[in-house]
Amino acid sequence: MDYIQQRFSVVFEYKVFFTSHLFHKTNPVFNRFLESEAVDIPKKILFVTDSEVALHHPTLLEDIRRYFAGNSYVELIDNILVVPGGEACKNTTTYTDEIVAAVNQYHVDRHSYIAAIGGGAVLDMVGYAAAISHRGIRHIRIPTTVLSQNDSGVGVKNGINYQGKKNFIGAFTPPVAVFNDDHFLTTLSDREWRAGIAEAVKVALIKDKTFYEWLCENAAALRDREMLPMQYQIKRCARMHIDHISGGDPFEKGSSRPLDFGHWSAHKVEQLSGFDIRHGEAVAMGIALDTVYSHFCGWLSETDTRSVIQLLTDLGFAVTHPLMQITDESSPLVKGLHEFQEHLGGKLTIMLLKEIGKGEEVHHLDISLLQKASAWLQQLSQNQAS
Amino acid sequence: MDYIQQRFSVVFEYKVFFTSHLFHKTNPVFNRFLESEAVDIPKKILFVTDSEVALHHPTLLEDIRRYFAGNSYVELIDNILVVPGGEACKNTTTYTDEIVAAVNQYHVDRHSYIAAIGGGAVLDMVGYAAAISHRGIRHIRIPTTVLSQNDSGVGVKNGINYQGKKNFIGAFTPPVAVFNDDHFLTTLSDREWRAGIAEAVKVALIKDKTFYEWLCENAAALRDREMLPMQYQIKRCARMHIDHISGGDPFEKGSSRPLDFGHWSAHKVEQLSGFDIRHGEAVAMGIALDTVYSHFCGWLSETDTRSVIQLLTDLGFAVTHPLMQITDESSPLVKGLHEFQEHLGGKLTIMLLKEIGKGEEVHHLDISLLQKASAWLQQLSQNQAS
Repeated sequence: MDYIQQRFSVVFEYKVFFTSHLFHKTNPVFNRFLESEAVDIPKKILFVTDSEVALHHPTLLEDIRRYFAGNSYVELIDNILVVPGGEACKNTTTYTDEIVAAVNQYHVDRHSYIAAIGGGAVLDMVGYAAAISHRGIRHIRIPTTVLSQNDSGVGVKNGINYQGKKNFIGAFTPPVAVFNDDHFLTTLSDREWRAGIAEAVKVALIKDKTFYEWLCENAAALRDREMLPMQYQIKRCARMHIDHISGGDPFEKGSSRPLDFGHWSAHKVEQLSGFDIRHGEAVAMGIALDTVYSHFCGWLSETDTRSVIQLLTDLGFAVTHPLMQITDESSPLVKGLHEFQEHLGGKLTIMLLKEIGKGEEVHHLDISLLQKASAWLQQLSQNQAS
Repeated sequence: MDYIQQRFSVVFEYKVFFTSHLFHKTNPVFNRFLESEAVDIPKKILFVTDSEVALHHPTLLEDIRRYFAGNSYVELIDNILVVPGGEACKNTTTYTDEIVAAVNQYHVDRHSYIAAIGGGAVLDMVGYAAAISHRGIRHIRIPTTVLSQNDSGVGVKNGINYQGKKNFIGAFTPPVAVFNDDHFLTTLSDREWRAGIAEAVKVALIKDKTFYEWLCENAAALRDREMLPMQYQIKRCARMHIDHISGGDPFEKGSSRPLDFGHWSAHKVEQLSGFDIRHGEAVAMGIALDTVYSHFCGWLSETDTRSVIQLLTDLGFAVTHPLMQITDESSPLVKGLHEFQEHLGGKLTIMLLKEIGKGEEVHHLDISLLQKASAWLQQLSQNQAS
């Protein structure tokens, strides 16, 4: 056969910074990042902020304007866009369109920056808009929730939803920097604070027994909003997430996604609830379901299974919900399993637990065992309530 | 400062195949590619075809259906989408939306394929739709024009237009395979056949004096539609384009695009003409303008300048057009120069000619010299006409 072989590799690198009060005028972190990037090209920076964050931090926009006033590395675009927080911003193309229009209006070029401040959904949506504008404008992430600081916000994915299907449209596009500012965590509601810890339970269960034990010891302190254990858990998770990306298949060309545990049902139940159930809350229930399934398929001991349920409960999570019920093949959650398979690329890959700290992948789930696991959790939940 | 450093590299590889009658049932090339990719995952293939190609190859859709009937590697989605050829398909989101809807409707997953058959515009548009669906569905390109077979079709860019701005929305996403089928070239109009040769003149002028001399010797044969020199020029250009991508900055993170010559004005004049002027025709005029500019700025000799103009003329190209006139700073073409600068990332980088076969970049163009070059070409053109 007559052909030319093409082969090249592209290097991606970025830092995940940990700081407090990122936009306080004396905080050097952001500015030093810009300094490290400085080249002989005029650059602009367009900020997009989560409406929830703007609400709870009423001086934020002024703080940003003050921070960048007279900055020698970038020109701040004075019109800071504010978009609705939460999944709402991903369920329409309205906000990506708004960002693309701003890129056009303010002449934001490929070497300029689009910075997103907000929870995971806002980062996903803004990251997507940045990825497709001029074939990729440099994207900075400033995650403001526990969940985005310890997981999605430090990764390489972006996206929006399509006809209720999560992340149906999107790309793999690494950011150029991530700034984790713990001051944003102080204004989270208890639900939001807690929700993000589900991802910590997830990675601990499949990769790190020591971290799991630390979580059990610190569950009450975490629930009671102590900042030191929260910082520790965020940094440990972020590190594992970063290492997982660089050590594996960053753009998921294969079919394996080994840091996914409890997510197939979580994605679906979020959608079924009209996003009343938050992603982290859904993940906690998904973890519970797949943990109990791991027990019923003969892998995980009953003691370990009950310990996981206890940890989730100690952290304040509900471990199931009427929408998590699986009665037969036609249950909505089973439909979600098929959608997840399609999203992965045709071959189902689900992580289960061999033991605590050790996940293992399977390519098939038994619906009758799933049914049994869901019923077991419903029963437990009713017993706890009574 | 407290931070975690992320760093990884991603390898991209694909083959550019050269063949005739790709979908003839005895042609093994496509099938061997699928065989080389075979894994234990069911895969589908969605075809999107350029309406012009479907018109000139009335058996194409049936040939595709026959080729894939009973194929053991992929399941053909019977609904082959047909989209308008030419820039029209990039000036709206209608057709990308249609492809995304088909991905949803036919459950095309990330390991399945979206194959595009058509000219550069159709490949750009379909490639973009594939890039954003499920964060990237495996994309196969089957370029059908000279221009797409020797240049854009074998590269890594895709995109659509936004408010008249070319490729404002898009991504860098390598295909998984490219099939250059020379049978498609036989039904091109003379204008289309010729237009693609402009890219050959471009690469020869900036990189390869031997190829330039070959082009001068074969200009009449190329104009007269002889297939052997056409195959040679396509393969030589494709090889240079492939090597340029892998040897440089594949996703253009820097500001340099050294294989661009004559393109800044070409992009603008295409748009100004409402795309009546084809890309290749615009590139020929852009080459003429920047060649004459290279002479007026004291780099290129008059003999070499006249030789380039002669080659373009021998190939059948017009070397200028009323829309290419530059009378002052407010000329539309000067506006195009500013737009090009913005698209590049703020810093202007323009290739000029030191000598034939040797390009060199500058970061500024003198408007009065541009004016002089454009007037010189207008004068020459009027003399040729009279």
